[in-house]
Amino acid sequence: MSLLFKHLRVHQIFGANTDVGKTVFATALSIASKNAGHQVFYLKPVSTGAPEDADDLKIRRFAQSGVNADCLFRFSEPVSPYLAVRMEGVSPNTLPTDKTFVNAISSHIKTCAGTTTKASHMYVETAGGVHSPTLLGTSQADCYRPLFLPTILVGDSKLGGISSTISAYESLVLRGYIIDSILLFKDPYYLNHEYLVPYFAERNVVVHAVDPPPSLTGNAAEDERTTAEYYASIASTHGSSVLSQAISSLDSAHAKRIEELESMPSRSLQSIWWPFVQHGAISGPSEITPIDSAHSDFFSIYKPGDASSSSVLSPQLDGSSSWWTQAVGHANPRLTLAAARAAGRYGHVMFPKNAHLPALKLAETLVAGPGRDWASRAFFSDNGSTGMEVAIKMALRDYGVRSGSWTQHRKKSLGIIGLKGSYHGDTMGAMDACEEGVYTCEWHNAKGFWFDPPTVGKKADKVTITQPSALGGDSVVFEHLQEAYDVSKRMDSELATRYREYIHTTLSKLAENKTHDLAALVLEPLVMGAGGMIFVDPLFQRILIDTVRLPTGLSPFPVRLPVIFDEVFVGLHRLGMESTSPLLGTTPDISCHAKILTGGLLPLAITLTSERVFQAFNSTDKADALLHGHSYTAHPIGCEVANETLAIIGELKESKNWKDAQGRWTPEKKWSFFDEVNGTTAPPPTVWSLWDPGFVGELSKMDSVEEVMALGTVFVVKLKATDAGYLSNLAESTFLPLREATTTNPGDLGSVAPGRAPYSVHFRTLGNVAYFMTSLNTEAEVIRDLEDRIWGVLTSSRT
Amino acid sequence: MSLLFKHLRVHQIFGANTDVGKTVFATALSIASKNAGHQVFYLKPVSTGAPEDADDLKIRRFAQSGVNADCLFRFSEPVSPYLAVRMEGVSPNTLPTDKTFVNAISSHIKTCAGTTTKASHMYVETAGGVHSPTLLGTSQADCYRPLFLPTILVGDSKLGGISSTISAYESLVLRGYIIDSILLFKDPYYLNHEYLVPYFAERNVVVHAVDPPPSLTGNAAEDERTTAEYYASIASTHGSSVLSQAISSLDSAHAKRIEELESMPSRSLQSIWWPFVQHGAISGPSEITPIDSAHSDFFSIYKPGDASSSSVLSPQLDGSSSWWTQAVGHANPRLTLAAARAAGRYGHVMFPKNAHLPALKLAETLVAGPGRDWASRAFFSDNGSTGMEVAIKMALRDYGVRSGSWTQHRKKSLGIIGLKGSYHGDTMGAMDACEEGVYTCEWHNAKGFWFDPPTVGKKADKVTITQPSALGGDSVVFEHLQEAYDVSKRMDSELATRYREYIHTTLSKLAENKTHDLAALVLEPLVMGAGGMIFVDPLFQRILIDTVRLPTGLSPFPVRLPVIFDEVFVGLHRLGMESTSPLLGTTPDISCHAKILTGGLLPLAITLTSERVFQAFNSTDKADALLHGHSYTAHPIGCEVANETLAIIGELKESKNWKDAQGRWTPEKKWSFFDEVNGTTAPPPTVWSLWDPGFVGELSKMDSVEEVMALGTVFVVKLKATDAGYLSNLAESTFLPLREATTTNPGDLGSVAPGRAPYSVHFRTLGNVAYFMTSLNTEAEVIRDLEDRIWGVLTSSRT
Repeated sequence: MSLLFKHLRVHQIFGANTDVGKTVFATALSIASKNAGHQVFYLKPVSTGAPEDADDLKIRRFAQSGVNADCLFRFSEPVSPYLAVRMEGVSPNTLPTDKTFVNAISSHIKTCAGTTTKASHMYVETAGGVHSPTLLGTSQADCYRPLFLPTILVGDSKLGGISSTISAYESLVLRGYIIDSILLFKDPYYLNHEYLVPYFAERNVVVHAVDPPPSLTGNAAEDERTTAEYYASIASTHGSSVLSQAISSLDSAHAKRIEELESMPSRSLQSIWWPFVQHGAISGPSEITPIDSAHSDFFSIYKPGDASSSSVLSPQLDGSSSWWTQAVGHANPRLTLAAARAAGRYGHVMFPKNAHLPALKLAETLVAGPGRDWASRAFFSDNGSTGMEVAIKMALRDYGVRSGSWTQHRKKSLGIIGLKGSYHGDTMGAMDACEEGVYTCEWHNAKGFWFDPPTVGKKADKVTITQPSALGGDSVVFEHLQEAYDVSKRMDSELATRYREYIHTTLSKLAENKTHDLAALVLEPLVMGAGGMIFVDPLFQRILIDTVRLPTGLSPFPVRLPVIFDEVFVGLHRLGMESTSPLLGTTPDISCHAKILTGGLLPLAITLTSERVFQAFNSTDKADALLHGHSYTAHPIGCEVANETLAIIGELKESKNWKDAQGRWTPEKKWSFFDEVNGTTAPPPTVWSLWDPGFVGELSKMDSVEEVMALGTVFVVKLKATDAGYLSNLAESTFLPLREATTTNPGDLGSVAPGRAPYSVHFRTLGNVAYFMTSLNTEAEVIRDLEDRIWGVLTSSRT
Repeated sequence: MSLLFKHLRVHQIFGANTDVGKTVFATALSIASKNAGHQVFYLKPVSTGAPEDADDLKIRRFAQSGVNADCLFRFSEPVSPYLAVRMEGVSPNTLPTDKTFVNAISSHIKTCAGTTTKASHMYVETAGGVHSPTLLGTSQADCYRPLFLPTILVGDSKLGGISSTISAYESLVLRGYIIDSILLFKDPYYLNHEYLVPYFAERNVVVHAVDPPPSLTGNAAEDERTTAEYYASIASTHGSSVLSQAISSLDSAHAKRIEELESMPSRSLQSIWWPFVQHGAISGPSEITPIDSAHSDFFSIYKPGDASSSSVLSPQLDGSSSWWTQAVGHANPRLTLAAARAAGRYGHVMFPKNAHLPALKLAETLVAGPGRDWASRAFFSDNGSTGMEVAIKMALRDYGVRSGSWTQHRKKSLGIIGLKGSYHGDTMGAMDACEEGVYTCEWHNAKGFWFDPPTVGKKADKVTITQPSALGGDSVVFEHLQEAYDVSKRMDSELATRYREYIHTTLSKLAENKTHDLAALVLEPLVMGAGGMIFVDPLFQRILIDTVRLPTGLSPFPVRLPVIFDEVFVGLHRLGMESTSPLLGTTPDISCHAKILTGGLLPLAITLTSERVFQAFNSTDKADALLHGHSYTAHPIGCEVANETLAIIGELKESKNWKDAQGRWTPEKKWSFFDEVNGTTAPPPTVWSLWDPGFVGELSKMDSVEEVMALGTVFVVKLKATDAGYLSNLAESTFLPLREATTTNPGDLGSVAPGRAPYSVHFRTLGNVAYFMTSLNTEAEVIRDLEDRIWGVLTSSRT
């Protein structure tokens, strides 16, 4: 991942264009650093052009003057690396992938860092412009991003150079790069530097401009002399030379970055109040993790190691997908561009009775996606909690309008039916749809009734439905997960009958007692997340839904109750499926969507509704309208990012990663789950996971494990415990070793993290439950590695 | 503003760099359009280079072939317009400003559009690269942005051209431009097109590549012949020529955009559920406004006029600052870049016990800003409503921990003290801190007591404090607003005594009755927004605050109550001041900030707290922690945008616009408001407005007006009405004429909107109250024009 050393300042040099003087500036910087008494390293990862060309000359010159200079890949055609490779007929199979290319650079830098403990400088010179393609064609700005090296941009002093310099700068900003300096030649005619110095000063970037190098005469001795004079003039030790100033300002930027990272924990402890954190239980700044940047599945965290020569930044796997939000990797450039596109076109625009394309497209996509066959429209809000408040307001009105018993004086006693362990967000209205518990505040007023549901888990390699005491407390066992989740087949089972009778009897009694007028059913389908990652028996949820919808006469209630699916966590493929409706074999009247919706970038929520619910608010009277809205409702930036996320998910559905995983979870023929009559190509299994079924099975057999489960990107392990519940510390203490950076594969091969660096794992626990969650595009090798680590922790803690 | 004609397709041509063939492509496109039977217009707004250069040749050639070609500004130096102007010694005063420059282009395009009703094409060729500076130095990509013309990008086929083409594209994306096509030459050696075609296909942009033009021999006749042949080959009528295909795809893009805009109202009515909108009262699609883009203070809306030759897009002033969010103008490029920077560096990262710079900086800045002298830390959430839920949870706990009477069984009866008309957001907990009303839902349970407060308003040019009946119902009059808001001076007044006694008596009775254990004071300082833009007498609020903080024995309550300032709407200079604390002469224990916080781009909220409140949750027990958090808590993109917004506001404080406005509101010496002993330089007045004091005074004298008020960016006019309240339609119907696009200054001068186009005003009303709100950087001339329009409506409705 990102490399940062206290003793070795490393900068990558990008060019605003080709032929802007990167080579001259790399040379001059190296000389200036050398002159200032530093050990200097220079790396040109890929060099193109004839051996007598600038790069080689420079490397030879460097070698003579004591600069450690190197080149990793070289091609003789003076074109972009991507094109050189093709021209020279190199087979792509022999070339490094983007990942191994970055690993090679990372490895080289670490080797250099290890050779010295003195204050040193290193310059890594890229090829061509910021977006010039690398060996396999990826743009350099994207390919180098995992290293997150601070950047020197060499500006363009020629005609058009103001524009190309600013555009190159903006492309770097879009990748989040730290740009410490812009260097360029002073062109006496175009005077680009006179424009760019104040332009970038306003953007807090220092521009250093120097005279261009002398023209070469062809007389070698003469050229050598004038060139030496030139470098002496721009890079002398004296503070007055421009490059010497540049060196100082780069040193300051380097020192400031480290100081900032060092000070962040204590400063944060002074000014930040974290959610869900007991500050009094924090022992000190060492418990706080500064995140310097993030990329794909990894944070880059500040954590100085024992060796003073090692990188103070190291990768940390984002094992909770940043609270269940990540879908396509951190800092995904497609999402960044989508955000920028909408910000640049609209900013935010007022929503009521206005239409803008990002919101309209998103509404249409969701109505046709998770809302297929039942939803007619989308209501926008800011997060899952507000989306659920809206959903509840909708359901209460829908019930009230249709209920003959609806009267004003009873509206405050309306209640909901839910499941014990449910959680719909932290605002008080959403909380009132849950039982009182550790999350609830003074004003909490539990409004409704909550069933203790049967749960699904893998115990001793068997898929086990565990019944609560009210349902007898016994277990039902299935051989394969597909059977447990084949709701339609299970509808005729004996268990279904038992559920039906139990639910009907319970609800009938409640309807008679009238503590609450039960007005809606609110469910997190399949999995209750914050309540402890509880996998609920889908058959129970299906029968509960069916029961509240029984026709008058058969129903415990005067009217069909509206049903809300809280799919904030479970939806949009978090569990491997777009929506839980097809699996449950029924659809809701209202559903709520957030988290993955915006790909893991920023808050936005959508509440989908059926036309019937919408009509409950529809009249000519303004007082009947849904008078709920937030200032940034349907902010274009969030909508555009959501649209891009859904487009990426569409591509992932066809990816090898998903197909392979689905294949692993496809039951053998004996489960006869598929229609063998109508076709040979099996559809993907209803339930599947990016986690390995073998791993899940083996773990379920361990003594310390009560049960395990995996669906989609989610893997959950529940440890045997005497003190369960949210406030238990068991899972946290058991998996604590994961928080230490290690290399699973010892030796040269290194870890699966970018740069093969040892990496740690960030994870969240819920009492005695540990869960691990990936993005939708996390690579299989990363998940395999995490499985190995989890396995390792549990086997070593067992002994 | 943005121009879009049904019959005339207009594209601007940007270059990925200078010398990439813009001229050749502009010529070829014009020929291809001509060949396809269209009338063709060509505009080079600024041409540089000797008259015999390409631009002039092209214009002459065009003239011969029937293309209407023109150039608005011409300079002979072959450099960027900005540099040419300086080289030729042109005084900047004689040059058009960015605004008049854009107006000139707009005017020219409209003239061309008016000359024909046939399907026509127009090409507007920019100079140099996308960011090449215009006459006064603004980047072209920024300067042309108000016109929002769809774009053809001419790519770079030379070495380095892949990079410069992608970077130029990204700079255009950052400004929200629609990029319909990329054109470039096929270079047989560098083959950039082979890379760029699939690259941009993935981004839904079509790339058209053609052979480069023939080299010129110097033989005029020969060159003329080969050039003609060249254009014939690439731009022939036949569908097979590349430019002919390009024309077709541009035509399709143009048609699709118009179709989309036309379909948006009906599609939105089918799939969107708007907040605070009674859908049943919408007469049809014509009531729905498609917003095509936005810039500075204006939306660009789709509204076809009567004349088929006029633009179907027109500017609409965002008169409610998009629900009180806008601070620095729509699509501000600084905010876009800030958003992109954070998205590129982090995406979103998990917040608990993690630190990232954007959040840390923001927390520190707010603690040192509105939290100065009282706040110790910042809690992040997603919007004002969630921020207030957090504030209430904090206050209840703070009260409970300190209250000797605190017992578990009474916690649900804790209540708050507020003011009638208050509003703290739409989630149910925030709603429970307000009285029952039109905004509240079934579950609403008003928890507390609400005072009917005295209000401030300008009536008949006098600043009038109107007392509610409980306080006698009489009025107190001040000559100047500064006096009414000089709270410290008024603390000794007779009215202060009356307030003190009334408040103390009322609260003492409530404390005895114990319907609620009153546990906190919750205020929107100075102005209650959603409740009807009610300007509360600040003296009343100050004395209320002082009373709930009286020491035990003197106080009606067992302990000092915590005080929450809901500054979501009123803070961060919306009313001209960073925080309302200095004016009130006291500080809160908890304050809530949102809306302007993120400059009008995306949702984020901060709740600031004192150390005492924080300590109420601080222990070693996790159950005591504030267990409230949202998935995207402290999302880096929101924090970085907030930091940039606060930096821009820092600059605005020193702006001429603000100084001028503050000067207008500075009272004459006779008010002796300033310390005349200690200095000559008067500080800015405590209360001031971007609205003109003369306008406010004159309006207050009108018969139809009950009262008016202005503070900061907010102007409010309350109409005399029999049926007041949120559901009244009086303000909406009175100001309806503002929704029609007009030009206030008839004739050539045009409106103050970009492109001098007739513009309409989007505004929101609250019953019989109309309010108008600007950004913090809205230009004075725009506000003056809006004042004229408001004046016009009221004078004409009076007659």
